[in-house]
Amino acid sequence: MAYSQEKLVEEKVFKDPVHRYVHVRDRVIWDLIGTKEFQRLRRIKQLGTTYLTFHGAEHSRFNHSLGVYEIIRRIIDDVFDGRPEWNSEQRLLSLCAALLHDLGHGPFSHSFEKVFDLDHEAFTQKIILGNTEVNRVLTKVSKDFPKMVAEVIAKTSPNKLVISLISSQIDADRMDYLQRDAYFTGVSYGHFDMERILRVMRPKEDQVVIKQSGMHAVEDYIMSRYQMYWQVYFHPVTRSAEVILTKILHRAKHLYQKGYQFKHEPIHFYSVFAENITLYDYLKLDEAVILYYFQMWEEEEDLILRDLCVRFMDRNLFKYVEFDPAKEYKKLSELSTLFAKAGLDPEYYLVVDSSSDLPYDFYRPGEEEERLPIQLLMKNGEVRELSRESQIVDAISGKRRTDHKLYFPADLLKDDSSKKNIKKQIRNLLDL
Amino acid sequence: MAYSQEKLVEEKVFKDPVHRYVHVRDRVIWDLIGTKEFQRLRRIKQLGTTYLTFHGAEHSRFNHSLGVYEIIRRIIDDVFDGRPEWNSEQRLLSLCAALLHDLGHGPFSHSFEKVFDLDHEAFTQKIILGNTEVNRVLTKVSKDFPKMVAEVIAKTSPNKLVISLISSQIDADRMDYLQRDAYFTGVSYGHFDMERILRVMRPKEDQVVIKQSGMHAVEDYIMSRYQMYWQVYFHPVTRSAEVILTKILHRAKHLYQKGYQFKHEPIHFYSVFAENITLYDYLKLDEAVILYYFQMWEEEEDLILRDLCVRFMDRNLFKYVEFDPAKEYKKLSELSTLFAKAGLDPEYYLVVDSSSDLPYDFYRPGEEEERLPIQLLMKNGEVRELSRESQIVDAISGKRRTDHKLYFPADLLKDDSSKKNIKKQIRNLLDL
Amino acid sequence: MAYSQEKLVEEKVFKDPVHRYVHVRDRVIWDLIGTKEFQRLRRIKQLGTTYLTFHGAEHSRFNHSLGVYEIIRRIIDDVFDGRPEWNSEQRLLSLCAALLHDLGHGPFSHSFEKVFDLDHEAFTQKIILGNTEVNRVLTKVSKDFPKMVAEVIAKTSPNKLVISLISSQIDADRMDYLQRDAYFTGVSYGHFDMERILRVMRPKEDQVVIKQSGMHAVEDYIMSRYQMYWQVYFHPVTRSAEVILTKILHRAKHLYQKGYQFKHEPIHFYSVFAENITLYDYLKLDEAVILYYFQMWEEEEDLILRDLCVRFMDRNLFKYVEFDPAKEYKKLSELSTLFAKAGLDPEYYLVVDSSSDLPYDFYRPGEEEERLPIQLLMKNGEVRELSRESQIVDAISGKRRTDHKLYFPADLLKDDSSKKNIKKQIRNLLDL
Amino acid sequence: MAYSQEKLVEEKVFKDPVHRYVHVRDRVIWDLIGTKEFQRLRRIKQLGTTYLTFHGAEHSRFNHSLGVYEIIRRIIDDVFDGRPEWNSEQRLLSLCAALLHDLGHGPFSHSFEKVFDLDHEAFTQKIILGNTEVNRVLTKVSKDFPKMVAEVIAKTSPNKLVISLISSQIDADRMDYLQRDAYFTGVSYGHFDMERILRVMRPKEDQVVIKQSGMHAVEDYIMSRYQMYWQVYFHPVTRSAEVILTKILHRAKHLYQKGYQFKHEPIHFYSVFAENITLYDYLKLDEAVILYYFQMWEEEEDLILRDLCVRFMDRNLFKYVEFDPAKEYKKLSELSTLFAKAGLDPEYYLVVDSSSDLPYDFYRPGEEEERLPIQLLMKNGEVRELSRESQIVDAISGKRRTDHKLYFPADLLKDDSSKKNIKKQIRNLLDL
Repeated sequence: MAYSQEKLVEEKVFKDPVHRYVHVRDRVIWDLIGTKEFQRLRRIKQLGTTYLTFHGAEHSRFNHSLGVYEIIRRIIDDVFDGRPEWNSEQRLLSLCAALLHDLGHGPFSHSFEKVFDLDHEAFTQKIILGNTEVNRVLTKVSKDFPKMVAEVIAKTSPNKLVISLISSQIDADRMDYLQRDAYFTGVSYGHFDMERILRVMRPKEDQVVIKQSGMHAVEDYIMSRYQMYWQVYFHPVTRSAEVILTKILHRAKHLYQKGYQFKHEPIHFYSVFAENITLYDYLKLDEAVILYYFQMWEEEEDLILRDLCVRFMDRNLFKYVEFDPAKEYKKLSELSTLFAKAGLDPEYYLVVDSSSDLPYDFYRPGEEEERLPIQLLMKNGEVRELSRESQIVDAISGKRRTDHKLYFPADLLKDDSSKKNIKKQIRNLLDL
Repeated sequence: MAYSQEKLVEEKVFKDPVHRYVHVRDRVIWDLIGTKEFQRLRRIKQLGTTYLTFHGAEHSRFNHSLGVYEIIRRIIDDVFDGRPEWNSEQRLLSLCAALLHDLGHGPFSHSFEKVFDLDHEAFTQKIILGNTEVNRVLTKVSKDFPKMVAEVIAKTSPNKLVISLISSQIDADRMDYLQRDAYFTGVSYGHFDMERILRVMRPKEDQVVIKQSGMHAVEDYIMSRYQMYWQVYFHPVTRSAEVILTKILHRAKHLYQKGYQFKHEPIHFYSVFAENITLYDYLKLDEAVILYYFQMWEEEEDLILRDLCVRFMDRNLFKYVEFDPAKEYKKLSELSTLFAKAGLDPEYYLVVDSSSDLPYDFYRPGEEEERLPIQLLMKNGEVRELSRESQIVDAISGKRRTDHKLYFPADLLKDDSSKKNIKKQIRNLLDL
Repeated sequence: MAYSQEKLVEEKVFKDPVHRYVHVRDRVIWDLIGTKEFQRLRRIKQLGTTYLTFHGAEHSRFNHSLGVYEIIRRIIDDVFDGRPEWNSEQRLLSLCAALLHDLGHGPFSHSFEKVFDLDHEAFTQKIILGNTEVNRVLTKVSKDFPKMVAEVIAKTSPNKLVISLISSQIDADRMDYLQRDAYFTGVSYGHFDMERILRVMRPKEDQVVIKQSGMHAVEDYIMSRYQMYWQVYFHPVTRSAEVILTKILHRAKHLYQKGYQFKHEPIHFYSVFAENITLYDYLKLDEAVILYYFQMWEEEEDLILRDLCVRFMDRNLFKYVEFDPAKEYKKLSELSTLFAKAGLDPEYYLVVDSSSDLPYDFYRPGEEEERLPIQLLMKNGEVRELSRESQIVDAISGKRRTDHKLYFPADLLKDDSSKKNIKKQIRNLLDL
Repeated sequence: MAYSQEKLVEEKVFKDPVHRYVHVRDRVIWDLIGTKEFQRLRRIKQLGTTYLTFHGAEHSRFNHSLGVYEIIRRIIDDVFDGRPEWNSEQRLLSLCAALLHDLGHGPFSHSFEKVFDLDHEAFTQKIILGNTEVNRVLTKVSKDFPKMVAEVIAKTSPNKLVISLISSQIDADRMDYLQRDAYFTGVSYGHFDMERILRVMRPKEDQVVIKQSGMHAVEDYIMSRYQMYWQVYFHPVTRSAEVILTKILHRAKHLYQKGYQFKHEPIHFYSVFAENITLYDYLKLDEAVILYYFQMWEEEEDLILRDLCVRFMDRNLFKYVEFDPAKEYKKLSELSTLFAKAGLDPEYYLVVDSSSDLPYDFYRPGEEEERLPIQLLMKNGEVRELSRESQIVDAISGKRRTDHKLYFPADLLKDDSSKKNIKKQIRNLLDL
């Protein structure tokens, strides 16, 4: 039998707290889960530093990847199967793309990518196409199968329908992470009637559409997403941890570039610092490795690196105040001067961080990060963009919300003998 | 105001998926949570290698410790407070002991302790009594407060009532971990009506007792515990991972003792190998560090260490068959010879592992690991041991269940050119 | 001890699926629950005819009334108690008003009140103030206590703070019914973080306010309410049952007024029909009684009454089409003529039904049904109306949504020998 | 297309709080749900008087019947379909039997049947085979289909496999009601991993068997059942309501037999009292009708009937003490004499009520109410009875637990002017 069609003798199930069970019947999927590169996702947290705010959020990207796969499997096997618009040959492609879509994530991705100018999506492509176990499994399906999977994930595939399953404003990725992150953090947001949404999804030529009768479930999903962004993903304490993490990586890179002699050689980081990282090196970077170095750096000579690492490991984070960049740039500059005078390098100890989200948007071609809007399938067969039908969604559509905060180490600004006066000025400016 | 009585200006809450919220009002508790040693528990998984079987089980001991604290807080503040048998001066002592009871756990405790002959309870004592941030916080309460807390955890305290809150056959520790582990693994066992049990707990001179009207809730708790042991804690796949982990540590220690030259110096391990580990060294050992070394050791020259590390990291575990030590010792010895002949050191590649649990027991003085039995408070004021009242509990009381399995690398026993014949004999013996 | 202060020897608990437990410690509350008039609420469904759409919605107003009481109890005992703005003498008043606020509801209230021009709120007042067991219990507290409770429920009390607990745009009534109705119907809407909302409620002079930090939980509550209205309360199938119910009552009243001789004397209805119902008669009307008559009327001579009763009992409901009264009044008039020609009295068999909801509104004095808007307590102590702070709420604030449908018995419009032609015309007009 | 094969154009779903959704695709099932006789189940509570103890337990048999159908549908469509041991022609038969298995239940079945010597199973047969809408639907499948369905429900069918799906010690009936009753009462018992159990069910020649790997889930189910019996179904307060209900019916029958002239003619009851009830009459009896009469009888001249009806309607129940019939028969006789002297007819006011349950049993042919034991399918293909494999189940297997209580109206035994002395003696004997 062709490898692509091969079924396991007995279905395998993973107990999953969000979807109850994840079911695997396809040999290809089973083999992919067993690869070194996929197992590595167990060592990368789904929500980065969020566990320092919501202690339950310790779940990994392995968790989430299985979940996305399971949602796609249900859509295809329980809803799309047998419909004329659905080509069953796309089934395996969709399942593989779902399972592997986050494969290239590095440790604490967000900060890591920002500091070292890396792109996890590029690494997903490299892992699928490079010399890896994942690639060897996919190649067994057919020679050009890795490329097909990679293109779906990169959204360059001609197969628009499959792309929209994996990546749109209501895709399996979002449906899994909202529920999963809600489950592990324990917040009461993030719930919506996914079973209902799955049942009303319909394949169309270029995109998945949603039967009109499911509109309210979709509204609920959009509100869940909005709440999760502001209540969980952009939580100011998480952002504080993110700020410190970013500054640690900055400092280490800076020290390396200055020729600083590390007590403990950061061998895993050399190629990252030097900006010539290979796939092999990249795959060695997981969160255990990062935390190992942070522990070692707690004993480095450089006081800034040391302090920041101690802060991160012991969760002694920065405090924050609201900040309006348009109106308060002068104050920021003043503060910057005062921090320097107080012996606190403002580059590391006075940080503006911004969050911004668009709860839903209709299509605006050419804008960054645009994702396909949600299309409703009306009773008469017509397709209409969601915000034209839903009063609630229309009300929030296209309304970007942005929030800025200023982070700093409040514990170092207390009244003490040295720099007493300067610190008092700082505290006054910060309204502490 | 005395530090022991100090309250936070605004109550702090932790969002907890199991108890909804963990509430902190006491300054002492807040300060303890902020210590370096307590934050370290974030880097130690509650269930060790279980995440390799149940992918949701990635939660840390930090999680669980907060949960035990919260349960004790509710018992005291919502149920015991104001009852004549309860001395409110024991409140802070109970809360601190609850929070800190697992403080000494090391990475993958079970295997780690076995291989290196360490005892996490001893380290809990050392952290509380030694030169640590935790000790400094406790000492602020009073000079002998650290000792009092340590004695409760060690069960040597004269305060039997508080000990029984933290450690009996129905204590806050068990009530938290059963529910928490069920939540994170996603299994449907582990649920019982804790709210009901808390409401019927009553302080007595020497022990917490349970009002008779709560007997059925307690029965349900005992059955939950039984199911969690056999369905989750003793899951054979988890045990397989545990076997490999243990063998990695054994091998590394063995190599060290033989004077093997590690490519990558295991500096964190030297004092462990040499069996003279200090508290300072111990606190540096967390699961990030362990996983870091396992990654490094994937490239060691020693083939056994290397193979086992690759297996653990990539979750390529051993398979197993049921094994009856009483009847099959001969077969084991035969297999051992054959493994050696096949080039597989039986010390590392043929492992018997046993699990054993006693779902409930009445008191049997002098036996190891005895925990206080559960006492019911009858309507007439009498106290009766649970199994005398509950038919169900009586039926299972004192019945130990034991299970043995034989673990081996099935992938290395396949039919291939080398050692073809010997491997066939092995497979026959193992019924593969 | 004063009756108002009397506590039960042992707290009583009701197992409640929504709030886990309802706790009663006050003798007054316990006695009120035991009254004839309160127990009568067990025979009146919380959601009227909704059980014909969502089969789980069979819960009674007894259920809900206990829930509202429990929420108020938690707000007062766990959050307000001890705050200077809270006068503890209002506790019992609040609890009683919460428990009794729905006491006057009749069977299938909505339709019943409409047809017979009754007002359940007036009956709540009469029960509290009249010759009832409830009144006797309340009078034991003090002579004017019944009046105080009645005024809170009627919103005429000078005690604005207590009124706002029971009746505002975020009151205990709504918080209970949203969750309870979601639970019993099984829909995934209706969930919000009530525990969080309770924790951030604060008493102010004239109104309960919500700490700003709870704004997102409130947004979620408002969205839940919106979804419950359109997904559950206004469900077109429920409305169809409501239409039939209303028409049954109309027909029976009409027949009575025409002097029709009922086979089975509707003794319970005479005073209702005659519009001179006493409190004593009213309290005898519950849903068992109504269903008893509907069964009896299935065998009346009058064909319309008979048909409608059979429909209701056997759930053979009317079908519907969307209807725009502004544009389609002409079509309605045409249909009306055709129905009459087809032998279907349009008064009973062609019914326009409208639903309308305002998800949230800021204060518009003088408008009907206005409820207090939600006020946020800002960090600086200022109070701000919710829609000024929440982008989401602002987007939907004051936006009324209305929906009209036209109901008719599709099963009687099928192509059959008699009136073939007329029915075809009707089907064409209705797009069947 | 044959009626038996007809599918609905669009699948219908019922929102169900226990199974999320109940799915109907078969025209036959849809038509059965729409019959008068099936809709009647909405007016009969699943748990009789339990709602007077657990206020959430107001759900109807309609609810439960849909649930049993859905479980069977899942077993057949998701697990059995395609297996050689499963004959797909049994599908519709199984679904119909599942849906209709409780069709003959009368109002407050237990008491009603006891007093009037009726049998709901006989009525289920009569409804299926008699002149009913249900019979007309089934007959459309084939002339002998009603008989086939009736035989499955009566367990006289040659089709043992289908019988065991509907009725064994682990059947769809029990799996639904345990979960459903737990859900509506809100108790924490009643949960078990049904999804797991369904997945390991296998059809065998004569019986459904359970794969050994699901044994722990089955143990959990058995414990859930045990807890539900003692915590919910046999709750002493529910039994008190049952006692009163039974005595009302007894009294009314007794009065009828004595020629008592009822103020309000109990027309619905005449044929019941006279023991010649027809199917037509039986189907008119629902709980609305019963409650209507109880209300009317609150105003009868007979003081006993009147008092008992007021008690039931206002939930003024009897109190109870534990009672040991073997040891206390003398005391009972003494009490009986004293009650008579005190003017309380012991026939109605002093009632012994017993409950008894067998949590699990292996097969004991010939015993009443025997149900098929649970069979495990071992890895080697062998079938073994559960208690031989499960230590826990073995421990409780065959152990019947019985409990007796003595009920009486404590409120009438208080110290008052009349019969002061006798009542004191009674109170002493009862330990009040």
